[in-house]
Amino acid sequence: MSTDTELKSSPTHPALAGLNKAVQGLRETGQYFFERGWSVGTSSNYSVVVNRSPLQLVVTASGMDKGRLAPNDFVRCNYDGNQVDADNMPTTDQPRSSAETQLHVVLARMEDVGSVLHTHSVWGTLLSDTFGDAGGFEIEGYEMLKGLAGVKTHQHTEHVPVFENTQDIPRLAERVEKRIHDESLPPIHGFLIRNHGLYTWGEDLAEARRHIEIYEFLFEVVGRKLAAQGKLCPAK
Amino acid sequence: MSTDTELKSSPTHPALAGLNKAVQGLRETGQYFFERGWSVGTSSNYSVVVNRSPLQLVVTASGMDKGRLAPNDFVRCNYDGNQVDADNMPTTDQPRSSAETQLHVVLARMEDVGSVLHTHSVWGTLLSDTFGDAGGFEIEGYEMLKGLAGVKTHQHTEHVPVFENTQDIPRLAERVEKRIHDESLPPIHGFLIRNHGLYTWGEDLAEARRHIEIYEFLFEVVGRKLAAQGKLCPAK
Amino acid sequence: MSTDTELKSSPTHPALAGLNKAVQGLRETGQYFFERGWSVGTSSNYSVVVNRSPLQLVVTASGMDKGRLAPNDFVRCNYDGNQVDADNMPTTDQPRSSAETQLHVVLARMEDVGSVLHTHSVWGTLLSDTFGDAGGFEIEGYEMLKGLAGVKTHQHTEHVPVFENTQDIPRLAERVEKRIHDESLPPIHGFLIRNHGLYTWGEDLAEARRHIEIYEFLFEVVGRKLAAQGKLCPAK
Amino acid sequence: MSTDTELKSSPTHPALAGLNKAVQGLRETGQYFFERGWSVGTSSNYSVVVNRSPLQLVVTASGMDKGRLAPNDFVRCNYDGNQVDADNMPTTDQPRSSAETQLHVVLARMEDVGSVLHTHSVWGTLLSDTFGDAGGFEIEGYEMLKGLAGVKTHQHTEHVPVFENTQDIPRLAERVEKRIHDESLPPIHGFLIRNHGLYTWGEDLAEARRHIEIYEFLFEVVGRKLAAQGKLCPAK
Repeated sequence: MSTDTELKSSPTHPALAGLNKAVQGLRETGQYFFERGWSVGTSSNYSVVVNRSPLQLVVTASGMDKGRLAPNDFVRCNYDGNQVDADNMPTTDQPRSSAETQLHVVLARMEDVGSVLHTHSVWGTLLSDTFGDAGGFEIEGYEMLKGLAGVKTHQHTEHVPVFENTQDIPRLAERVEKRIHDESLPPIHGFLIRNHGLYTWGEDLAEARRHIEIYEFLFEVVGRKLAAQGKLCPAK
Repeated sequence: MSTDTELKSSPTHPALAGLNKAVQGLRETGQYFFERGWSVGTSSNYSVVVNRSPLQLVVTASGMDKGRLAPNDFVRCNYDGNQVDADNMPTTDQPRSSAETQLHVVLARMEDVGSVLHTHSVWGTLLSDTFGDAGGFEIEGYEMLKGLAGVKTHQHTEHVPVFENTQDIPRLAERVEKRIHDESLPPIHGFLIRNHGLYTWGEDLAEARRHIEIYEFLFEVVGRKLAAQGKLCPAK
Repeated sequence: MSTDTELKSSPTHPALAGLNKAVQGLRETGQYFFERGWSVGTSSNYSVVVNRSPLQLVVTASGMDKGRLAPNDFVRCNYDGNQVDADNMPTTDQPRSSAETQLHVVLARMEDVGSVLHTHSVWGTLLSDTFGDAGGFEIEGYEMLKGLAGVKTHQHTEHVPVFENTQDIPRLAERVEKRIHDESLPPIHGFLIRNHGLYTWGEDLAEARRHIEIYEFLFEVVGRKLAAQGKLCPAK
Repeated sequence: MSTDTELKSSPTHPALAGLNKAVQGLRETGQYFFERGWSVGTSSNYSVVVNRSPLQLVVTASGMDKGRLAPNDFVRCNYDGNQVDADNMPTTDQPRSSAETQLHVVLARMEDVGSVLHTHSVWGTLLSDTFGDAGGFEIEGYEMLKGLAGVKTHQHTEHVPVFENTQDIPRLAERVEKRIHDESLPPIHGFLIRNHGLYTWGEDLAEARRHIEIYEFLFEVVGRKLAAQGKLCPAK
């Protein structure tokens, strides 16, 4: 990995500045999401694209406490999801990439995606269970939808696919990739994995964060409305 | 805009001190409301009247993150809602006023209004939907109502109009203006826009903030009470 | 008021140190309760006994923002609830005591009471309404009850009287005084005023704060349990 | 207690550094749990194993405010739960160990346990009451379960025993000890005491904290789901 070696040997390289900025942004994001209760118990994974061609992402390493991410709690991965900095850090203490990195890569391959965020919230979990059998649900009519990139009116219908959870991440990544490139279906800004969590993305970290906030707000509104109507997680 | 030019050329002008104080107050307000979850996802807009005659407001610019408002994330508007500082800042990076500025202007034209605040909360959204068809609802009997300016007893009935949401802000502003000046109807301290959010105001920023707190507290009480009674967002 | 004059003229007087400590403790308490959402919108009143004989209390002045209490946002009152520092501060800007000071005085007259705290919470409001007609309710069987002074086991039944709200505070104070001295009824650690808020007290500020936390925790538990059972604020 | 005396007389002793680190970690943990609302009203107890053989734990003393634990708000206990530093601090102000220390000791005797945490939450209380008669409940199918040590898939069933509350802590400790060593039953990561709170543990403080977060997240999900289904705390 010559690119990687170069980065290490030239601390003033512009790419390194971009890397440091990405890491710092994700550390702040982790603290913020942790405080909101969306990333507790070392759950969640966040990434930022630090190079487009060839694709390189900085991703949170496996199993870190998102409320106190340290500068070294990240790994870099390439287009195939392989860790590009592994060779240079042969110690056993080296952070490992999470299995879910594959999902980040699949999303980051889209040209206009600069950041992918994955969180676990109570309301997202409840909705994912409610609509897991149906494979998804729709949110429409809320002004807050305009916080999703490109949405210009509250009279928008946002589809939220719900994928069954699995530990077979490559297979899940395939299903996700198929969905986001299926032009016969409406475009989406995020999706849920059943009883697991939310994935969303944006052109940069700020937009991806905004999307998390929009989804979490709407999940709580829709969840409380369904609960009031006796339609949340109906007993089978 | 001679007034504007003067402000720029004399940094010690008293009006500039007032402007800076207003901006600082709104930045703090944004951080506070963001933490409460009332202004997430770049939603919401806040304003303070910095000159009465001719009317001039400082308003949050379009699409800013309310949790981290910078000193430049504001614009100044006049009686007609037009941006008065636009000519002086010809760069493309210049912040633009939000479409909803028109609603702020309509409210700020009232002589005793020094600040207008607009937020988006979960409970406000649920109530706006519950009472959208009815066009509003009443809150009565709560001690907390005494936090609304001029209310001296809990035996007060506060009318909360709910307007249908629309992207045609000038038309919405007209309907709001008509309602607040209709003396055949009870006076109000705020209103909801359906599935959108709350507008309230006060003689200064402190009073407008207090009104937001009062409404949000009462919305949660009324919302939980209705939910317990099976009357929140009843299925149609 | 010779006592008062002496305090002002001798800044090193031990009573003044006690007064400053009380004010500082109440300012911190206000910030904490405000963050929890128990004292928003300038609601609530707090007091600390700074002299037992003759009785003197420092009390939050009327209408202050509890999240940002300043050192001057307090008044001192005597056994009769009259403001003892009024003569010395003849300016119109002088803070005024709240009407509810009378309730603080009635409670502070009890020999073992060193602090009285009054807050407004969502769950307390909902329970006060649910049990307003019945005049109160009981909480029993929770380990958390052991946080109330003198309670040694979870097998304790705590009576929570609910008084009808009124703007006639002297009359309400009379009813409260009668209840706390009625030895035919079980002793209490606090009470609710319907659709208004909670009063509790302790031998010092720390104990009174603990009691607020205990009540608020139990109110939420009991409130959510009743909601789940369809018994919260039942429609009439 | 020669070990104890040695620690006191040699401030640079490595064991003392471990003790200080444990105390500092527990103070931070207290502040964090207090802010989340899991340790209000001086409830809860936390411990860290500072020596394995002979067993020695540092435990929060009885009745302390967990949001502001001071360095001296801790005691050290041995394998039998007796306070090992008592002889050296004969003053009456000395902190006393909590009765519940016995439960910490029983758990800390397990070889792979380095920390025990006990908290009181609203959702934990509601679930403990819902399933108290049944003696426990199961949580399964959630990705968040993977935050419990050794759990590798969401297709895991975690048993959560619920013990009846009692003030006879030695007897409760016996029942707990019997359960955790009963190899005919599934292994557990924590348990509830009815209308009281949660106990969980980990190989170190970080793991125990993570377990608290995992349980609290899952308790809220399961609690809201049951409430939506009319199965939370059903009326008898």
